[in-house]
Amino acid sequence: MKGKVSDNVIRRMPKYLRELKRQEDSGLTRISSTELGRLLGFSPSQIRQDFSSFGEFGVQGYGYNVQSLREQIENILGVNRSYKAILVGCGSIGKSLIHNFCFEEQGISLQAVFDLDTDLIGTKIKGVPVYDALDLQEYLAEHSIDVAVLTVPQSKAKSAAKMLMDCGVHAFWNFTNEEIVPPYSDVLVENVHFSDSLLSLSYYMAERADNQKRTKRIAVGS
Amino acid sequence: MKGKVSDNVIRRMPKYLRELKRQEDSGLTRISSTELGRLLGFSPSQIRQDFSSFGEFGVQGYGYNVQSLREQIENILGVNRSYKAILVGCGSIGKSLIHNFCFEEQGISLQAVFDLDTDLIGTKIKGVPVYDALDLQEYLAEHSIDVAVLTVPQSKAKSAAKMLMDCGVHAFWNFTNEEIVPPYSDVLVENVHFSDSLLSLSYYMAERADNQKRTKRIAVGS
Repeated sequence: MKGKVSDNVIRRMPKYLRELKRQEDSGLTRISSTELGRLLGFSPSQIRQDFSSFGEFGVQGYGYNVQSLREQIENILGVNRSYKAILVGCGSIGKSLIHNFCFEEQGISLQAVFDLDTDLIGTKIKGVPVYDALDLQEYLAEHSIDVAVLTVPQSKAKSAAKMLMDCGVHAFWNFTNEEIVPPYSDVLVENVHFSDSLLSLSYYMAERADNQKRTKRIAVGS
Repeated sequence: MKGKVSDNVIRRMPKYLRELKRQEDSGLTRISSTELGRLLGFSPSQIRQDFSSFGEFGVQGYGYNVQSLREQIENILGVNRSYKAILVGCGSIGKSLIHNFCFEEQGISLQAVFDLDTDLIGTKIKGVPVYDALDLQEYLAEHSIDVAVLTVPQSKAKSAAKMLMDCGVHAFWNFTNEEIVPPYSDVLVENVHFSDSLLSLSYYMAERADNQKRTKRIAVGS
């Protein structure tokens, strides 16, 4: 790899991966940067530049081998590293993730769920056991966990994250709407904020409305 | 505004807004680009450049007025436009959004929820009425809706989106995991893919592991 890759490039890789999987499933074996760009709304040069951050993936003029590119991107993204996860807080968002999100497909094995609800403790959700949150420290002393999916109520987010960090969990996929700032560089936090994507949509809605008004004014004026 | 603003800049604006709200709530009245950058992990020059895409917000050397900057960003993001939304599909992710996501805070008024579940139809969730999905077309003929929150099962995503577009809904906040490609430029779609953020986290976990191994090798070799 050629030095540090920018966060923007990293964040486009999952999009490439999704599209390549889709194309592979539909039977495509080769794809050009032009075609991949058309499908994703990126320029071909952007795509070539992004991939070149990681080495040479295609042969000039021949496009990319879909399967091989998909595998290389999976390697880059660590999909083949079999990370072990726990989910902490089994409320509506936690349940929704367990039921609908395919952890395995992203190379993550969801090992256990923790909650305080006695109706849930001792049950399994989609085959994953739900344990008492009070036993979390004991569990972490015995199991090596790579990443915690944090879905506790917002008011519990900071204390839960601190406890997990103290027990050696150093990566967080955080849905609590409370920004968790890593206390030291070894801790990785991906804060998921639904509002960010809604506000981006809102911006484009506002821009579209303004453009339509402008077009109307030009039409009236002409 | 100075011409078209890049999507990367747009997507940073909600992060600025969140941090500014937090600082305003804690009583701060002025903030420098250095301090805002430190809180968010961006360089001060990045921040000044982002804001300058929309005009002049601060006075050189004096920093930004927190409240005024927050208001200007809200204007840019269309938070003050009182958009009307419906939510289509009241499964676990739909319910989770209604219960936990503060639509009002993002300037969105959630008007109604649609589902086929007869146990839900006729009830209210957090004050929002749940109607029969079979009555959706009729509802849209009578109500002007700016944006649909799409939380139907993945297999229903495309048909639901098409029907909504045919009924005049031209913006989608799509949680179905099925990529909705806008059929014409007037339609705006924000596809939410949880896997994108998890895979970015996975990348950084893999990078960290590789760096730690490298550091160990250097230590052993030295």
